[in-house]
Amino acid sequence: MQLAMIGLGRMGANIVRRLMRDGHECVVYDVNQDAVAALVAEGATGADSMADLAAKLEPTRVVWMMVPASLTGAVAEEAAAVLESGDILIDGGNSNYRDDVRRAKALREKGIEYVDIGTSGGVFGLERGYCLMVGGSDSAFAHIEPILRTVAPGVGEVERTPGRSGDLTPEEQGFLHCGPSGAGHFVKMVHNGIEYGIMAALAEGLNLLHNADAGVREAEHSAEIAPLEEPEFYQFPIDTAAVSELWRRGSVISSWLLDLTAAALHENPRLDGLAGRVSDSGEGRWTVKAAVDVGVPVPVLAASLFERFASRDEDQFANQVLSAMRLQFGGHKELPAGDVLEAGGRKSDSA
Amino acid sequence: MQLAMIGLGRMGANIVRRLMRDGHECVVYDVNQDAVAALVAEGATGADSMADLAAKLEPTRVVWMMVPASLTGAVAEEAAAVLESGDILIDGGNSNYRDDVRRAKALREKGIEYVDIGTSGGVFGLERGYCLMVGGSDSAFAHIEPILRTVAPGVGEVERTPGRSGDLTPEEQGFLHCGPSGAGHFVKMVHNGIEYGIMAALAEGLNLLHNADAGVREAEHSAEIAPLEEPEFYQFPIDTAAVSELWRRGSVISSWLLDLTAAALHENPRLDGLAGRVSDSGEGRWTVKAAVDVGVPVPVLAASLFERFASRDEDQFANQVLSAMRLQFGGHKELPAGDVLEAGGRKSDSA
Amino acid sequence: MQLAMIGLGRMGANIVRRLMRDGHECVVYDVNQDAVAALVAEGATGADSMADLAAKLEPTRVVWMMVPASLTGAVAEEAAAVLESGDILIDGGNSNYRDDVRRAKALREKGIEYVDIGTSGGVFGLERGYCLMVGGSDSAFAHIEPILRTVAPGVGEVERTPGRSGDLTPEEQGFLHCGPSGAGHFVKMVHNGIEYGIMAALAEGLNLLHNADAGVREAEHSAEIAPLEEPEFYQFPIDTAAVSELWRRGSVISSWLLDLTAAALHENPRLDGLAGRVSDSGEGRWTVKAAVDVGVPVPVLAASLFERFASRDEDQFANQVLSAMRLQFGGHKELPAGDVLEAGGRKSDSA
Amino acid sequence: MQLAMIGLGRMGANIVRRLMRDGHECVVYDVNQDAVAALVAEGATGADSMADLAAKLEPTRVVWMMVPASLTGAVAEEAAAVLESGDILIDGGNSNYRDDVRRAKALREKGIEYVDIGTSGGVFGLERGYCLMVGGSDSAFAHIEPILRTVAPGVGEVERTPGRSGDLTPEEQGFLHCGPSGAGHFVKMVHNGIEYGIMAALAEGLNLLHNADAGVREAEHSAEIAPLEEPEFYQFPIDTAAVSELWRRGSVISSWLLDLTAAALHENPRLDGLAGRVSDSGEGRWTVKAAVDVGVPVPVLAASLFERFASRDEDQFANQVLSAMRLQFGGHKELPAGDVLEAGGRKSDSA
Repeated sequence: MQLAMIGLGRMGANIVRRLMRDGHECVVYDVNQDAVAALVAEGATGADSMADLAAKLEPTRVVWMMVPASLTGAVAEEAAAVLESGDILIDGGNSNYRDDVRRAKALREKGIEYVDIGTSGGVFGLERGYCLMVGGSDSAFAHIEPILRTVAPGVGEVERTPGRSGDLTPEEQGFLHCGPSGAGHFVKMVHNGIEYGIMAALAEGLNLLHNADAGVREAEHSAEIAPLEEPEFYQFPIDTAAVSELWRRGSVISSWLLDLTAAALHENPRLDGLAGRVSDSGEGRWTVKAAVDVGVPVPVLAASLFERFASRDEDQFANQVLSAMRLQFGGHKELPAGDVLEAGGRKSDSA
Repeated sequence: MQLAMIGLGRMGANIVRRLMRDGHECVVYDVNQDAVAALVAEGATGADSMADLAAKLEPTRVVWMMVPASLTGAVAEEAAAVLESGDILIDGGNSNYRDDVRRAKALREKGIEYVDIGTSGGVFGLERGYCLMVGGSDSAFAHIEPILRTVAPGVGEVERTPGRSGDLTPEEQGFLHCGPSGAGHFVKMVHNGIEYGIMAALAEGLNLLHNADAGVREAEHSAEIAPLEEPEFYQFPIDTAAVSELWRRGSVISSWLLDLTAAALHENPRLDGLAGRVSDSGEGRWTVKAAVDVGVPVPVLAASLFERFASRDEDQFANQVLSAMRLQFGGHKELPAGDVLEAGGRKSDSA
Repeated sequence: MQLAMIGLGRMGANIVRRLMRDGHECVVYDVNQDAVAALVAEGATGADSMADLAAKLEPTRVVWMMVPASLTGAVAEEAAAVLESGDILIDGGNSNYRDDVRRAKALREKGIEYVDIGTSGGVFGLERGYCLMVGGSDSAFAHIEPILRTVAPGVGEVERTPGRSGDLTPEEQGFLHCGPSGAGHFVKMVHNGIEYGIMAALAEGLNLLHNADAGVREAEHSAEIAPLEEPEFYQFPIDTAAVSELWRRGSVISSWLLDLTAAALHENPRLDGLAGRVSDSGEGRWTVKAAVDVGVPVPVLAASLFERFASRDEDQFANQVLSAMRLQFGGHKELPAGDVLEAGGRKSDSA
Repeated sequence: MQLAMIGLGRMGANIVRRLMRDGHECVVYDVNQDAVAALVAEGATGADSMADLAAKLEPTRVVWMMVPASLTGAVAEEAAAVLESGDILIDGGNSNYRDDVRRAKALREKGIEYVDIGTSGGVFGLERGYCLMVGGSDSAFAHIEPILRTVAPGVGEVERTPGRSGDLTPEEQGFLHCGPSGAGHFVKMVHNGIEYGIMAALAEGLNLLHNADAGVREAEHSAEIAPLEEPEFYQFPIDTAAVSELWRRGSVISSWLLDLTAAALHENPRLDGLAGRVSDSGEGRWTVKAAVDVGVPVPVLAASLFERFASRDEDQFANQVLSAMRLQFGGHKELPAGDVLEAGGRKSDSA
């Protein structure tokens, strides 16, 4: 079928490629004309304006936006201006599901169907397909199903879940109508929240393995911290690259994120050159806020978010306050990294 | 090669089967004679005592214990009594790595090599093979390598990590010499600690999805908790079984634990009959204690452990203390589930 | 000076009493006419409507609302309708600071000054005074300062902070102009967030003391959980009531919340009759959400909030998911409280 | 009565001073002869060896050790060598209660009573007295009660807990027989664990206040993190020194640790010169490990400990692993502090 794509960054362009490979007809638009030209060279129809894009589509028009979340609002307005009642506007970016709820309501007044699609897959999506979490009306979902089926991974090599039989459901092919407008990005938001938690679990565990030789390194430790009480139990120089490779086979924690970890550690076993200042995008934050709203405890998901904040030193003033309190109640001076406390300094919290 | 297995529970028996399939010769022993008989019927040599077991092996004897962790100490002593200098005693159970360090030291005095093997694979290990994390001397590891190679999953269908080339390393075949005695169970301990974290991330996320319709259910809520502030954003009745199936394909959180989750939710979408009192075995606890010892922050791993404690109401007295404090400072009565606070009761923490 | 109070619940009434004791003139209004009558009997001027209330005040009118947060919006609108440009409307309740920002902006258009006051003090405020966190313009703050000075605790018996000298600042007397509109409730919000954290620290610590005899009770334990490894170290039957009383004197954790804890445990040492379902009001939630917004890690404050959610079984579905996963990968049945696992069941997470 | 003090650091010396003021007779010993001389000048009897110290005491000898935890074992052995059956040896330092359990058992064989005393009070103890948590036999506790009564704060200015009447209990005077050997340090350990939690709650809350102007500073932010979504709600430049002073009066979080915080922030409002590398002594760690042992959830206490680890960059490898994973799945480069991501880089976790 016919579809227009607005936003030809890596993900937008690759979705277009995947659609064209499967015989769909794509009209493409981007502020970057080179990006348009590249896809035109691969068989897409280029558009040089929103109006042009709309003109090149037959009703029912289906327009997929794949732009940075910060631009989605403006682009959606531009697109809505050239669309007609009955047309379908898709947001495949990383929007906050709350914006979907608001936008869908506004567009519904014009008769335009708004569909939010949470899209997972990253750099591998072109080959593997993208996992699609869809929010919107039943009729809109039904209309775009051929597109979704193409963009999604399909069954692939994943074994069928025991107990399932008969026709394959959409979710078994990698796309799902999750609910009304907003539900797609809500599910994607939680997906990313879980991703943060899994990443953190792996990172914390590997950090513990990385320090399993603390008993050997004990002598080098400054007195700044409590001494290792039983150094004989921490004498293991663990090869974390080898261990993460090992766990890929036969272990219960095998997973795609572990695959990536093994690849990263094989490439750069000591992770030289990485400062460990970990960015976060909106989804992890929205997940925690949504959980707080509905009263669902998410200590693991929240902890994984806060670790990222702390990795960027956003805990700095809190830590200074702790040092300041300790100075007050014990007269204990804080020491810069590497320095050594005076005798007895170790008794620092004994107040 | 020849190997004796002590302990013919599910895992011990299946390891024997996997070894025999590959042509290894197995002597088997268990206090349960039926378990012995079953494997003898499949081609194993039965032993009716430790001494018998030792007598049926040629030096260098290799004896693998696969017994509950609480029995390992006693069984190891019995086994050591019939073994000779140069023989190899393997603990494939879920022992605390600290016990390995102690046992290896004691057995070394008798010339017996002690090898600890953390074994992951569960009910699927017979077919898939077991991920093996090995601690012990270089020579012992070299001697038992043919056994490890058979028990491990091998390369299987897992894609090779980008950047790896040449001969396959042991870890690419699912077994690894992690370090000296204790290192195998140390790595297995951390593996299980990570497993707790991943499981918790999935469970928390699914709980949030399960409550994404809180705005619909708002009316039923007792006044016991803060009211939902923007119910319009929590109107999604999410099918968690379908979502967990969906994420198996193309998503960055696809993993074996997600596969299990999808299977469980397909079987029993509302999880009827499960009380949600979650057990924990030692590894999760040991992981947190080890991290505390060496000063590695593990907020996610610890939170996942504490959630399990709380699921069994081990937080009860703490919660009562909180209720008691609140009674003191605000005169706020605590209400049983389902009851409704008097007007103004909601302002409970406003002191 | 002259002030009107809307809302004569415990806090509103006591603030009026405290003001009248110090010679201020109070006009009082509540939908509950008995509450009005009671204060009229003590010397206040009653009002029987908003209009009446406004009529009984001289410009610059100062009106203090002390109503449940859910009613503040409506009451503020009613009050604004009878106020004039230059008048001051105070919200002393537990509003979300975001509502203050919005309301202040709307009222500013009518020339009405909006002042938000976070008020702490609870049942003891009548005697001790209330800690007042004030947001609003400099001129409004200056105008109401005499009232604030009366309502606040004053210096009291609290020792002056070392290094402070000269005239007492407002904060040394228990009231502070924290910033523009919203700043008062923002600071109060964080105050309550901290309160949750302190309460949780005390509750968790006391729970650990309560279980310091776990080694004695070991035999009664079901096999549902990992066995206590060194029961000889957990043989202490601690009297938590006595300990909390003890810590009130000379210890670094002495605090008002500890005083309350000691009182509660003295009254009811086993906390009989308390179910431990802990309510939460909005502030703890808003604190976590604000921290997430600005990227400040608050693992302790968030954990204390999540513990309250879990105390009300809001973790139920997550725990069921965990049980369901465990059933899948190990065939381990979940047991109801009190039951005993079959032999070997303890090895439950060994997959 | 008569008592010997071994270890004349700040706390040991001040306890001696407090005892002498109240008429007790003190024999003092330290490897530092100047410390001995100083107290002799104030009226103590000096000892120049353990044997000398023992000789200068009448049976039943009472010897109080106040030495760094790392030396307690050795000093206890030296002291035991010169004591006789029936004598009492006190450890007032910050020992692990497990060492008390072991030492008490060993000394009991020689007939020596071992008493462990957790001591809180810090630099203010000389004037205020020390909160004393005592473990040991009933008879030993009874024998040393006059000493405890002197060292403890007594009733002081702390109001009696409502509901208490009649004779003052020991805990109302600041000392308590908590249980058998080890119980004193166990209670002190939990006390310090709670202290970590309270300190962290205050520090996190103040950090949030410190960042309440994030909306003003937004422009300066690098694109490394998710943008502030509603900057209009984070426009508060809060004076954290003034706020912490404010909360000392009338607020429910008033506490001694808040007093210290207010003093610290008054002295140094921006906390200049403090790196925020927060040390920890053993108690916080032992608390978490004990909680894990007995299955008590302590998410707040653990989080406060892990924050300290992270403040010293012990999370470094974990953070590098996270950065490495993100590089793998999105091709996102990590940026050093202060740099700016290329357009679209903000979508970093959208995989």
